[in-house]
Amino acid sequence: MPIPSPIAWNSDHTIRILDQTLLPGAETYRDLDTVEAVAEAIRTLRVRGAPLIGIAAAMGVVVGAGKRGSGEAGKTPLEEIARACELLGATRPTAVNLHWALNRMRRRAERACAEGEALREALISEATAIWDEDRAMCDRIGELGASLIPEGSTVCTVCNAGVLATGGIGTALAPIYTSHRAGAKPHVVVPETRPLLQGSRLTAWELTQAGVPCTLIGDGMIASRLRLGDVACVIVGADRIAANGDVANKIGTYGLALAAKAHGIPFYVAAPTSTLDLATPDGAAIPIEQREASELASWQGTRTAPAGVRVWNPAFDVTPAELISGIITDKGIFRPDEICRSERPGIDRPVVN
Amino acid sequence: MPIPSPIAWNSDHTIRILDQTLLPGAETYRDLDTVEAVAEAIRTLRVRGAPLIGIAAAMGVVVGAGKRGSGEAGKTPLEEIARACELLGATRPTAVNLHWALNRMRRRAERACAEGEALREALISEATAIWDEDRAMCDRIGELGASLIPEGSTVCTVCNAGVLATGGIGTALAPIYTSHRAGAKPHVVVPETRPLLQGSRLTAWELTQAGVPCTLIGDGMIASRLRLGDVACVIVGADRIAANGDVANKIGTYGLALAAKAHGIPFYVAAPTSTLDLATPDGAAIPIEQREASELASWQGTRTAPAGVRVWNPAFDVTPAELISGIITDKGIFRPDEICRSERPGIDRPVVN
Repeated sequence: MPIPSPIAWNSDHTIRILDQTLLPGAETYRDLDTVEAVAEAIRTLRVRGAPLIGIAAAMGVVVGAGKRGSGEAGKTPLEEIARACELLGATRPTAVNLHWALNRMRRRAERACAEGEALREALISEATAIWDEDRAMCDRIGELGASLIPEGSTVCTVCNAGVLATGGIGTALAPIYTSHRAGAKPHVVVPETRPLLQGSRLTAWELTQAGVPCTLIGDGMIASRLRLGDVACVIVGADRIAANGDVANKIGTYGLALAAKAHGIPFYVAAPTSTLDLATPDGAAIPIEQREASELASWQGTRTAPAGVRVWNPAFDVTPAELISGIITDKGIFRPDEICRSERPGIDRPVVN
Repeated sequence: MPIPSPIAWNSDHTIRILDQTLLPGAETYRDLDTVEAVAEAIRTLRVRGAPLIGIAAAMGVVVGAGKRGSGEAGKTPLEEIARACELLGATRPTAVNLHWALNRMRRRAERACAEGEALREALISEATAIWDEDRAMCDRIGELGASLIPEGSTVCTVCNAGVLATGGIGTALAPIYTSHRAGAKPHVVVPETRPLLQGSRLTAWELTQAGVPCTLIGDGMIASRLRLGDVACVIVGADRIAANGDVANKIGTYGLALAAKAHGIPFYVAAPTSTLDLATPDGAAIPIEQREASELASWQGTRTAPAGVRVWNPAFDVTPAELISGIITDKGIFRPDEICRSERPGIDRPVVN
């Protein structure tokens, strides 16, 4: 697939990212060699997408631990890693993969220190494992989800949950890529996803790169587009799945789910199991990131709304479990009320409704 | 109210318009002294809003009839008026007020010729009457609709159906202005309304000018905003109301209606009776204008989507009658299934559910 990877190691294990804020106009790469630079890249969405944020943060811990795993004067390596995790963990509040990845890195560092392993090598290996596992999870989501897409059909998504959002072929887009590679000719409806246009800038871009036909629409056109009757299913990503199956995802997902329900169209969420947060009982307990007013009130420096206007700009919304037909994970396809079981070995019972 | 009028006669009965494509950045006025210039202004949305399009087209017929009502060489005055009506009527297909106003102008011209009246004066008088009647209809909609807005409550609208869309205080915004002037302190939730941002550029601008507090949101945020539980009702305008009560309005209205339904929030349409089209049996028979791909695929000359991407960009959608709690007209508030009766004298029976 000729889609550039959104992240890579440099040979010295600093990080190279594709700056997603500059797509589709320019394909610009940036090297990140401090934990502050990694945090800035996550905060400003140069790197984004729940799974990719987790990977970038894990790689950021390696950068933050210093070149020799030795760190700043006066700080122990573990103190320095704790500081890096704190800085990276504070960048974005909603995606749980971020905290999941940082916890793994912290635990790995503690074990390495306790057992006298080489710390830096252990951290590099753990971050690489997080990435490799995510890639494998994407592939598995693709295989499982492709069975939900009838040949030659149209699928609607929102935002970007593709190659640019993960360490592999995506979450929501993985079943589409798998279906496309199998020759099933899927077509994708892509809402532009205001305010930051991840739909038009990123999803339409990567689908076009991959040769998957897609149609761009405005966010306000979703309900009318679903009403045309040719959309076989909706597949979206997730930033956090609560224990009861409620799903936080890009703002607009909830309205899309209501429109899918009104038209009898199955609504699927695709996410790796690292997105599942059993400590969060339901959607009401998920913290929702509020972003700057300027994202809605201006465009590339030009005001699009009168000065001083009040703005409400949450980056995510919560789709209640009852609107979700199934959650496609790397461990199977579950009904939202059964998603907790996906974490328990031996009760891996996929259900599709 | 210190909101500038979107249209005015010059002393020679050419037209001066506020160019709405340049708001909120610049308050620029343009003089239109040919029917082609009026048609261009309507087509490019310098003048927009279903009622205002009707008024502008009527005034455009005056401009098109020539300074002495004499017209081009080789054409009778009535032929010239027919040509002006054809040109103006072809600008935008969905709003029915345009055709309603042009039909009135054509009939008035025929009567003037038949009865030997001064044609130009008759046309000026008819266009002015259309405008005056629209202003009065807006006032009446404001009075009737204000009763639906509880004191201190929040109302959600979409696009712009205010001063900038009509010859008076608006349709959807009229009840809000009337309520505000009565001291009832309404607050308005304004979706930005992509692709052309009539919500942020026009509605937020005119509400701010009038001192009515408002909050701008993205179109994808509507369902989540309604879920907060403090929105008392939704009021939107209409471009055409079919005989069965189905309503064509700005794209996004249908999704807003679905979200209102899901949250038990009353959904009202506000429109003058000139918006009612008894010749159109239902929403499926309303022609929906498809606009240029570039409105979604680029922004002020900068591409926001990859080159060559397919775009679906309808300007309007249809909200089925069953999602509409009431239609606020100048003749009363009707259930959609009773809207036909608003046209029959003696059966003027307002109903609110």
